[in-house]
Amino acid sequence: MGKLTVVGIGPGDYENMTVRADRALRECQVIVGYQVYVELVRERYPDKEFLTTPMTREADRCLMALEEARKGKDVAMVCSGDSGIYGMAGLVYQLRGESGEPDVSVIPGLTAACSGAALLGAPLTHDFAVVSLSDRLTPWEKIEKRLTAAAEADLSVVLYNPASHGRPDYLRRACEILLRTLPEDRPCGVARSIGREGESRMVLTLDGLKDFEADMFCTVFVGNSQTRIIAGELVTPRGYRNV
Amino acid sequence: MGKLTVVGIGPGDYENMTVRADRALRECQVIVGYQVYVELVRERYPDKEFLTTPMTREADRCLMALEEARKGKDVAMVCSGDSGIYGMAGLVYQLRGESGEPDVSVIPGLTAACSGAALLGAPLTHDFAVVSLSDRLTPWEKIEKRLTAAAEADLSVVLYNPASHGRPDYLRRACEILLRTLPEDRPCGVARSIGREGESRMVLTLDGLKDFEADMFCTVFVGNSQTRIIAGELVTPRGYRNV
Repeated sequence: MGKLTVVGIGPGDYENMTVRADRALRECQVIVGYQVYVELVRERYPDKEFLTTPMTREADRCLMALEEARKGKDVAMVCSGDSGIYGMAGLVYQLRGESGEPDVSVIPGLTAACSGAALLGAPLTHDFAVVSLSDRLTPWEKIEKRLTAAAEADLSVVLYNPASHGRPDYLRRACEILLRTLPEDRPCGVARSIGREGESRMVLTLDGLKDFEADMFCTVFVGNSQTRIIAGELVTPRGYRNV
Repeated sequence: MGKLTVVGIGPGDYENMTVRADRALRECQVIVGYQVYVELVRERYPDKEFLTTPMTREADRCLMALEEARKGKDVAMVCSGDSGIYGMAGLVYQLRGESGEPDVSVIPGLTAACSGAALLGAPLTHDFAVVSLSDRLTPWEKIEKRLTAAAEADLSVVLYNPASHGRPDYLRRACEILLRTLPEDRPCGVARSIGREGESRMVLTLDGLKDFEADMFCTVFVGNSQTRIIAGELVTPRGYRNV
């Protein structure tokens, strides 16, 4: 029996991959993933067998990867960002079940909370919450409750999946919820297409963020009560005493 | 004038560094950091100048790094885990101030939320909060409020700095706060010395975690209401519907 390695490739460029992720992709026989992510790595590992599924077919993709490993192949499943944080590792373990076969290992990668924060300055130097605005698998009421709790506890907040074609106004709705607790001038930031062509960043207020037209390539950062803008960088101090 | 690059080296081993972090350390002239972290990289980059300060002397370390860059050196400041998440990037920007000089860039690295989760299974497939239990720079009341908010909003929780010599009982105190909201059998995990010699992991319940003797090498994971143990792995499903 082969083995399945779930690989977080980071934001998408080779530079932001770990040495270990690169090694796993070099050593495997088959690379499985969502079409867009497979395209990010295809050129660098040209001698592999590639298997892809479209977006929203995550379970099919995991079952395909497990099946290839059971047939004797060494399989790497690529995930954008981290392999675990909103990644496929959990679903792979769920679908593998209690048998413990085939052998599965998880290689972490840079999630957008790390890579986007570095692009914007240092907004996550202190405690924070990570919340996805996608309600495809989570009731919106739960998302709303989490945003409110984070704001009331003075956590910085990272918003994943702030918008898509089907829900263009979710970032506005999230900002309106946060603005019940947080001031309009709270420093915020948007990192877009991190590590890919057209990478960009914007530092703005929460009020400005409400009207920002995010898309699926954006990761959004909302500062805590101490966050400020220093020489254009979004910076959250380490603590609540002086440097 | 030289430049300062703040480099997240990940958990500590070369394998978990990014290609970009490795390149920055190869290309710099001076490596600055906390003694323990500098030791993690000294062997691989032997021809560098090394400057270290002890723990708790973070501001001195940042000022030293900025000064070396102002003197014309290309400086890399190493941080364990990510350069931003509880790292030095924020303090560097604070101490550099509004001048914008010297040039500073931030290279992200794998934070323990990513690397520890991968070791334990996939506990962070859904929304989560990251909270440090160190009250050196944060009032305990604020930490307590954040733990309660995270538990009430059904966020998975990652606890950084769960204990140290000076505060051996903080993890117990944190568990007692969480147990006001969460059940005793909530699945949890501890990742210790991730990517270093003696790396280990433990999956246990929240009640068991309360009596666990954590140290400064541990990162602690508390699942959400959906988290379960599958074939020994700590797994949080992606959503609240069926696979």
